[in-house]
Amino acid sequence: MGGVPEPSVPGFKAASVCAGLRKSTRDDLAIFFSLLPAVSSVVFTKNRFRAAPIVWAENRINLKDLRGVLVNAGNANACTGDAGLEVVEEISREVSRQLNLPEGKILVSSTGVIGVPLPYKKILRKLKNLCSNLSSDGFHNAARAMMTTDRCEKMHRETFRAGEKTITIFGVAKGAGMISPNMGTMLAYLFTDCWMASRTLDSLFKRSVERTFNRIIVDGDTSTNDTAAVFANGATLSRPLRDREIARFEEHLFKVMKGLALKIVSDGEGATRVVKIIVKGAKTTGQAEKVARAVGTSPLVKTAIFGADLNWGRIVAAAGRAGVPIEPKAVEVHVDGLRVFGPRMARASRSLGKARERVKKDFYEITIVLGTGSGGYYVYTSDLTYEYVSINSEYTT
Amino acid sequence: MGGVPEPSVPGFKAASVCAGLRKSTRDDLAIFFSLLPAVSSVVFTKNRFRAAPIVWAENRINLKDLRGVLVNAGNANACTGDAGLEVVEEISREVSRQLNLPEGKILVSSTGVIGVPLPYKKILRKLKNLCSNLSSDGFHNAARAMMTTDRCEKMHRETFRAGEKTITIFGVAKGAGMISPNMGTMLAYLFTDCWMASRTLDSLFKRSVERTFNRIIVDGDTSTNDTAAVFANGATLSRPLRDREIARFEEHLFKVMKGLALKIVSDGEGATRVVKIIVKGAKTTGQAEKVARAVGTSPLVKTAIFGADLNWGRIVAAAGRAGVPIEPKAVEVHVDGLRVFGPRMARASRSLGKARERVKKDFYEITIVLGTGSGGYYVYTSDLTYEYVSINSEYTT
Repeated sequence: MGGVPEPSVPGFKAASVCAGLRKSTRDDLAIFFSLLPAVSSVVFTKNRFRAAPIVWAENRINLKDLRGVLVNAGNANACTGDAGLEVVEEISREVSRQLNLPEGKILVSSTGVIGVPLPYKKILRKLKNLCSNLSSDGFHNAARAMMTTDRCEKMHRETFRAGEKTITIFGVAKGAGMISPNMGTMLAYLFTDCWMASRTLDSLFKRSVERTFNRIIVDGDTSTNDTAAVFANGATLSRPLRDREIARFEEHLFKVMKGLALKIVSDGEGATRVVKIIVKGAKTTGQAEKVARAVGTSPLVKTAIFGADLNWGRIVAAAGRAGVPIEPKAVEVHVDGLRVFGPRMARASRSLGKARERVKKDFYEITIVLGTGSGGYYVYTSDLTYEYVSINSEYTT
Repeated sequence: MGGVPEPSVPGFKAASVCAGLRKSTRDDLAIFFSLLPAVSSVVFTKNRFRAAPIVWAENRINLKDLRGVLVNAGNANACTGDAGLEVVEEISREVSRQLNLPEGKILVSSTGVIGVPLPYKKILRKLKNLCSNLSSDGFHNAARAMMTTDRCEKMHRETFRAGEKTITIFGVAKGAGMISPNMGTMLAYLFTDCWMASRTLDSLFKRSVERTFNRIIVDGDTSTNDTAAVFANGATLSRPLRDREIARFEEHLFKVMKGLALKIVSDGEGATRVVKIIVKGAKTTGQAEKVARAVGTSPLVKTAIFGADLNWGRIVAAAGRAGVPIEPKAVEVHVDGLRVFGPRMARASRSLGKARERVKKDFYEITIVLGTGSGGYYVYTSDLTYEYVSINSEYTT
């Protein structure tokens, strides 16, 4: 599932520091910064309760003309009212001063607990130190600093040729809980050293978000803070990409984002397996999506995946309550291409026996063929385990 | 939450037997039977995959003119194709013969594993024995025989006066998993010894289903087999109820059904707590319902309930993704009437401290006030625990 992360990209630097926002002494404040002016695009959570940094960013800065992002873990600055907004403003002012930038060029993100005032003075005190440590080797530590319940840092890097130059697309992400496919649902930042028109970057990025981050399900809950951003600074290639190069850029951007999305769902709270739920033959794409999401969110399906139980009964039952017209007699279910349910299916068929082995793997595909049209959709889902319950019943406000 | 179950109702008998449909030697086949002709009403699952007994009943019998129900545990006879339908027909024929009834007067229900052919010969062999054991003390054992992952049998009995007579409404139910509020979502049977017009019984029953069984959430999955039925046989009062009596009947029918619904959600797979999620002040009832269901289904809310964690952040985040317009600044959250989130809320308020104690109880209320209108809705939800994962990852097909 994608390239080995070599955590660097020309023209960008990163750093992290411990600001003491959580109980441990782990780094919890990170910055990612383009040395050059960059073109950017940002997508936020669709949750109606949006955290202060998101409300602030949407109202106060130009999301297409950013140089980087400052992110803290340990506190989401969500449901913190007007005071939460003022805090973002203060942080923004101070980080701009430290970087010697006009205000509003640095996106501010927060992740962690909801509803507790952000101890912003701890952040302000550390900004000078943070900014003076910016380094082209800083990505790995910065990626670790934004982790919350994540078990590991998430990075993905791809390169492609444009003329004589090698272009890098590098991404970092965090996210393990509150993951549901309705944009964002995590923090993800993409960096590239080529250049293109803002409009082009924006549309490529949004299309890719829809096909990657919006397709992963951990628990069906959508966070208040989710943010994905891309920055292109032209450090390696300063002329705009040509059409053919743009196609290659999109292909590799998709790879990086898919890589990060799969890392998030694989690291879904307590997850031991990831399953791609594919729906085919629906009347419309919308109906296919409803079925895929119903199956991918079902606690009964997700516990069966954990138990390595080839429980197609739970799969069809979840499909049946998706609110979509279904012709039960036409429906088939396949596991890694092996038919396990469908018309005239023998109970003791060889494919069932083989499929029982497949569901013990870390990753496999469940395909649901509805047989009523040509609409299709897919999502990636993780299993529901003891550890999910442990993490979320013991994680305190 | 309601009357002590005295498992009997005039004019009805019940029995159970072990037909060997599951590995244990527990009874797994039950019958409930009216000695007199009765008026009845039945509601089935809205899942598009409906089990054979449901498809059969909807097509082959008059649901308003039934005398009782035969129910087996251990096998759902779901996704079993035309063969599954033929099996129901054979069972129906034989039970009618044993009871000396015209065909089609006995509803047939099945619960248990999906997609495995029902070993109907085991059932046929036991029907004679079962029918000859019918007794007015048989309800308790019959209620136990229909249990699957249930930890205890579920019964509720209420009485009221109509003229000189005492009328009984008695109900039995089963259900612990695949519980979501979209009709049925379990098996429930109600018995009463009064009489009324079929149309009246039907409308009272459906209104009560909407306010009881359709309001409980264990895992958001809707079963393929859910059925609720009511039988009124006039054994104690054979004249139709008068208007004032009908109002009393409805009130007590509601009590019995609410009692059973709460027993189901309290016995939700692995549940340790039940919370009533109340939404008020929505623009419409429909919007209130969406918010109540989003909060009541959220795995993050349900694990926080398990952890006795007053995590209002997860509650508002779930409300925020319900797909309903929300004005975050107007929203309040209360726990048992104690405000824990809202405008100008002090972080260390006394109500917060008190509310932290309330969430340790077995049962409490969470009220979400949206402040945009007068629409309201409520659901009952259980918590998500280690045991839920255990039951569902280890329950094999």
